Amino acid sequence: MTLQALTAPQREAINRVLEEQLQLIASPAARLHEAMRYALVLGGKRVRPFLTYAVGDICSAPRTTLDLAAAAVECIHAYSLIHDDLPAMDDDDLRRGQPTCHKAFDEATAILAGDALQTLAFELLSNAQLEVPAERQLRMLQVLSRASGSRGMCGGQALDLAATGQHLSEAELSQVHQLKTGALIEAAVQLGVLAGNDDAQQYYDDFTDFAAWLGLAFQVQDDILDVTSSTETLGKTNGKDEAANKSTYVQLLGLEQAQVKLAQLHQKALQALQRIPYNTQLLEKFAEQLLNRDH
Amino acid sequence: MTLQALTAPQREAINRVLEEQLQLIASPAARLHEAMRYALVLGGKRVRPFLTYAVGDICSAPRTTLDLAAAAVECIHAYSLIHDDLPAMDDDDLRRGQPTCHKAFDEATAILAGDALQTLAFELLSNAQLEVPAERQLRMLQVLSRASGSRGMCGGQALDLAATGQHLSEAELSQVHQLKTGALIEAAVQLGVLAGNDDAQQYYDDFTDFAAWLGLAFQVQDDILDVTSSTETLGKTNGKDEAANKSTYVQLLGLEQAQVKLAQLHQKALQALQRIPYNTQLLEKFAEQLLNRDH
Repeated sequence: MTLQALTAPQREAINRVLEEQLQLIASPAARLHEAMRYALVLGGKRVRPFLTYAVGDICSAPRTTLDLAAAAVECIHAYSLIHDDLPAMDDDDLRRGQPTCHKAFDEATAILAGDALQTLAFELLSNAQLEVPAERQLRMLQVLSRASGSRGMCGGQALDLAATGQHLSEAELSQVHQLKTGALIEAAVQLGVLAGNDDAQQYYDDFTDFAAWLGLAFQVQDDILDVTSSTETLGKTNGKDEAANKSTYVQLLGLEQAQVKLAQLHQKALQALQRIPYNTQLLEKFAEQLLNRDH
Repeated sequence: MTLQALTAPQREAINRVLEEQLQLIASPAARLHEAMRYALVLGGKRVRPFLTYAVGDICSAPRTTLDLAAAAVECIHAYSLIHDDLPAMDDDDLRRGQPTCHKAFDEATAILAGDALQTLAFELLSNAQLEVPAERQLRMLQVLSRASGSRGMCGGQALDLAATGQHLSEAELSQVHQLKTGALIEAAVQLGVLAGNDDAQQYYDDFTDFAAWLGLAFQVQDDILDVTSSTETLGKTNGKDEAANKSTYVQLLGLEQAQVKLAQLHQKALQALQRIPYNTQLLEKFAEQLLNRDH
């Protein structure tokens, strides 16, 4: 079963929820709203919402809660992509084979669309429709905000920009990725657990470990794909890391050792799952497919 | 008593709280953290935190709750200023007489500092130290996110950019300002009420009305000052609205009628306060000073 097929139910769910939520918040600022929709529905692999849904289902979470939590995580991810693509940042014209938000609209609108999508994430997650105790919902908001801010994703992007042209050690590179990509992947999983029943809460740390290893493996795989995949398959400009003189696992370890590293991280992710006495088969298959993808 | 003197206790409180919170979240991304601090401690009139504190005190709110709520509102305000000043937006070099964030640092850092300050707002407001029932705290998060996003401040900024070079009606201009500036001023007041005791909740709408009229009056005053005040007194480039061909109350109504409008809005704000059976003298004095300021 391909990654596409495996994640189809969750992708259909998140696409529907995002559409519904966009309709609920129709803004007087029509162009801004259009840019938010453009960035949100462009889609992609929907890795983060998949994780929230899959983990949440394993933890017997109510569906409405997962809908809103998954949408919140995806809003944060979408906002970060819009801002990362800006000329002052990574200056990318293409994203998933389509013009980036500032190309399809304009820079000001793209900045504001990113801003408003970040806000929307917290609006969705503070929604009164979440079917969890209020204290738990607050904890979900703490998790998502912590993972997104200066000690999480946003800090990682700043470190990544600062690292351009620098030679990073493997530990430094791992820190950049843990913050830039890992933190939000962990949050996606943690929200799934927090949305779940009381029993599931005791496996919070095991799920988090799974997410941490998966996130790092995902990034090593990304670095490998940047040199082994064509621009057409990737849907974004390939060889870009090298051109931008960025540290990557491939550059640091060589292609072969990067592939060994990827396999090790994959194993650690699976070991974390083995500590959880629920049926985690879907997560195992997902890790397998995600880490063997060719784009 | 001047505005400076009147608001000194709240300004000292918010400056201290912001410093404390910045120290608590020391990020590995040092330059990002420095830019966040730069934007936060540059200060200004601190109108929004003043309102949260003043209204919260009137409503017998616990101090820790007000500290975090006021800091959250100021983080949203600071983030919006950083992004509004960017070259792709209003392209301002000066803010409060100092280089704007992207001038003092660089554009990428300024974008990220704004992003991370927005996140920080929600991290602060979801903090477990708030001494309010969890349901009430969720309501505070709903209020702040709603006021900041595409149906609030961010939508207002988008409409404002779209309106450049357009002739707006007074209703359209009021909508832009209600969203761009008014929504967050209202939220600052609403957070003060929500942090308060149960009795105070019945005056939520009256406090909100006060905030709405004050916010609009503040904007009319801003338009008046843009033409009557010098760049030196204002701390930002004056005559900028006219140069940018933006609709203003002065341009729409003429200077004299704009001043009449300001007085009317001021009266409406005071009338809203009269419906509240608490001692609201501090808010009356504040409105008086704020709307008679010369910079």
